[in-house]
Amino acid sequence: MESIYQSLCKHWQKISRFKYLSALGEWDQATMMPTGASQARAEAMAELQVHVHQLKIQPQLEDWFALAKQEELSHEETLNLQGMYRQWFQATVLPESLVREKTIVTQQCEHAWRTQRKENDWAGFVKNLKQVIALVRTEAQIKADAYSCQPYDAMIDAYEPGMNSAKLASIFAELKNWLPDMIQQVVEKQKSEPRMKPLGKYPIQNQEMLCQSVLSLLPFQLECGRTDTSVHAFSCGIPEDARLTTNFIEEDFKPGLSSLIHEAGHGCYQQNLPKQWRGLPIGEAISMGIHESQSLFFEMQLAKSEPFLRQLLPLMNQHLQTQFGIDELININTRVQPGHIRIYADEMTYPAHIMLRFEIEKSLLDNSLEVDDIPEAWDQKMQSYLGISTKGDFQNGCMQDIHWTFGEFGYFPSYSLGAFYAAQFYAAIVKQTPDLSASISTGNFNPVFEWLKTNIWQKGSLMMPEAIIEKATGEPFNLKYFKLHLESRYLN
Amino acid sequence: MESIYQSLCKHWQKISRFKYLSALGEWDQATMMPTGASQARAEAMAELQVHVHQLKIQPQLEDWFALAKQEELSHEETLNLQGMYRQWFQATVLPESLVREKTIVTQQCEHAWRTQRKENDWAGFVKNLKQVIALVRTEAQIKADAYSCQPYDAMIDAYEPGMNSAKLASIFAELKNWLPDMIQQVVEKQKSEPRMKPLGKYPIQNQEMLCQSVLSLLPFQLECGRTDTSVHAFSCGIPEDARLTTNFIEEDFKPGLSSLIHEAGHGCYQQNLPKQWRGLPIGEAISMGIHESQSLFFEMQLAKSEPFLRQLLPLMNQHLQTQFGIDELININTRVQPGHIRIYADEMTYPAHIMLRFEIEKSLLDNSLEVDDIPEAWDQKMQSYLGISTKGDFQNGCMQDIHWTFGEFGYFPSYSLGAFYAAQFYAAIVKQTPDLSASISTGNFNPVFEWLKTNIWQKGSLMMPEAIIEKATGEPFNLKYFKLHLESRYLN
Repeated sequence: MESIYQSLCKHWQKISRFKYLSALGEWDQATMMPTGASQARAEAMAELQVHVHQLKIQPQLEDWFALAKQEELSHEETLNLQGMYRQWFQATVLPESLVREKTIVTQQCEHAWRTQRKENDWAGFVKNLKQVIALVRTEAQIKADAYSCQPYDAMIDAYEPGMNSAKLASIFAELKNWLPDMIQQVVEKQKSEPRMKPLGKYPIQNQEMLCQSVLSLLPFQLECGRTDTSVHAFSCGIPEDARLTTNFIEEDFKPGLSSLIHEAGHGCYQQNLPKQWRGLPIGEAISMGIHESQSLFFEMQLAKSEPFLRQLLPLMNQHLQTQFGIDELININTRVQPGHIRIYADEMTYPAHIMLRFEIEKSLLDNSLEVDDIPEAWDQKMQSYLGISTKGDFQNGCMQDIHWTFGEFGYFPSYSLGAFYAAQFYAAIVKQTPDLSASISTGNFNPVFEWLKTNIWQKGSLMMPEAIIEKATGEPFNLKYFKLHLESRYLN
Repeated sequence: MESIYQSLCKHWQKISRFKYLSALGEWDQATMMPTGASQARAEAMAELQVHVHQLKIQPQLEDWFALAKQEELSHEETLNLQGMYRQWFQATVLPESLVREKTIVTQQCEHAWRTQRKENDWAGFVKNLKQVIALVRTEAQIKADAYSCQPYDAMIDAYEPGMNSAKLASIFAELKNWLPDMIQQVVEKQKSEPRMKPLGKYPIQNQEMLCQSVLSLLPFQLECGRTDTSVHAFSCGIPEDARLTTNFIEEDFKPGLSSLIHEAGHGCYQQNLPKQWRGLPIGEAISMGIHESQSLFFEMQLAKSEPFLRQLLPLMNQHLQTQFGIDELININTRVQPGHIRIYADEMTYPAHIMLRFEIEKSLLDNSLEVDDIPEAWDQKMQSYLGISTKGDFQNGCMQDIHWTFGEFGYFPSYSLGAFYAAQFYAAIVKQTPDLSASISTGNFNPVFEWLKTNIWQKGSLMMPEAIIEKATGEPFNLKYFKLHLESRYLN
């Protein structure tokens, strides 16, 4: 006879199949779909999402969870049951009316933002954003009551289980102690260095061939995945069908290649999640921070390291018919330049953009900041962290991101957590692997990938992010590794 | 307040959205999916199909149909209600246990057939096929009782509403009167003609460019569709997202190009179905015969006609770097050669393959033939219709098709009905369109496409196949147009 736990697992596997089809639909939309299909596709995808949501909130589940808790389960099964319960709880905690209202309000806000941003129309945008934030505050309060935590913590928890705003505040406080100064120091240092430009004319076809060559240096398996192009690079899928995209511009080979390497980090994590738990919560990625740590490990730690650039150099010169030397390639890959826009930021200035957003989100959700006051707070923080004024420049200031328009609060910190985790992982690999430098100097990065596979990828959601970090690196999360990484790359 | 009819429509539109996602999943499987995903994809697709089936058999539908019949409906709405009822009835008429058993038995039969066919293993195959046919007989009987018709008619009706085995028998009896003789006559005539071969080395990339050029001669809209390659050419999708595939071989440019033109016929029909009825039965293609008539119209009537070949010639010589003359191109496109294999057959011998299968299916379903006797019947008919012996050669005889392995009976006639309908449509266009030959001789085929759009494509399922033919051509279906077409192309 099937146990209740097994019934729950079957139900979750069913949900995961629809989620796979949903990922496929989104991928197709971004890569293959003819433009004329957008309305019909949007309707079909919405129908699928409603169905997934309905499967998650089926009335019998509450009883099943109560009964399954009394069954005899292994350690992994218990974790898996908790994972299912967590997803069920997240799906049921909000009243349907609030979910519906948020969908409508955020769609309107996002839709209008696309024009308002171009027109620098803060006055128009603020009206919609106020509605969104009113709903987000309600949502966060309901979740906070249910989880017995602070409202913003309830939002953060959805992306980074175990993390909260107090811990983040302490991490960013530490960062603030040294990052703004370090940025100035590096900018000063780089002023005297020649500034190489990757600008030229690089036919897309050549960049594609380069990307395929680079991919063969990485453990991304093409028999269980694909690479394509789309307007914004992304990755999605399941272990057996992990899909990456990138985007090329003719004038610069860097964005296309960097995005591909970044997404390949996500893809390798995805492909190596524990297959025996496929379709179940503990078989999934544990957090957005850990996910981002893998993409940033590939893009920043690995692919900007000198040994990797030395492997890249001949491929690049061959496919792009360039004649770069290794010093030029290093120079191109390590420029630091404070700027307005988060998504164009280098690895050193990026966390400043995140710190700023974290502080504003936190204040919005503890009601110490109102929506009208965002531009002033934004400008003051940009001045303080990056020495940049954004007065009156909303489109390149507080209106630049899509996240808030659809009510996504608590996500931004994951980007920087990923960068910090990645630095700690790289340091641990160096420490734990004898002869690593000999190995990677010959272009053999397998010890690095094996370490990631064993310590991160195959853990799925069997451990919390904090535990994964501590087990893998031998110590709790420590920001110092990110600092050491920046110092070693930019100040030596 | 929403009427019951409207509730039914909303429900059917929901079903159509899941069917769209299902088509997308199948398309992806055949064109894009990495091999490693096949198991996970099969599970997801099965889950989706179960869901669609469950939506079709929801218990409240029976009452809804009873109530909706009493509502005041327009002519179109009444037709649409009948269409929904028909689909519901087809989904509910078979007991679930039979559906499940058929799925299992046909999957086993098809799976084993893939090896058995290669090994010419009739003895092995016949055991499985007997099980399949036993279930098909049960299925057909249940449907026949429900529809008050003959068992085979109930199977045919699923693909060609309004058609039945008596009508088909009469069509094929007429065909048998002249086709075998005509084939011998044409073969004799062509013996004295030079035999051009399209063999050579045609790089796939060049064939792809040729196909894109040819596509621009056809009204297939790339903003509402795509073309790709897959192992077997097919088409699928919805009006706004109609996808075609073809398959290229380097040695011969004909299969890739012909398949593309064939599938473009399906695609144009799909794209021009009445959009105001999207997601509802009357917005769908009315039958497989009419669908096939459009692909065969494009492939056979249009693309093998001299005016079209004259447009094709320069494109072909340009993209393939060939130096064909028009006579060679016509010669290549009009060779008649009786052969064992249906899917390689030319347009003249093709109906003989179908006639044979129709007669065997009919006898199997009225119990006048048993499975063990198929090879003998096959051989006797092949001798009689095409002068070919298949004794002992099962793999190129009665084991060549996939259809019977998964219990698909009643489908084959649609292929030939399509060819016959297409000939009648072309004849009607010629008759009804003044200055047609002047127009098409300058490469302007728009009058042809406009006629198809008005008379076939935009009719959706607003009329039965017979009525569409009669309304469009001014007379009931008449096989003579197919005969006239063959005579004019092959005997003049």
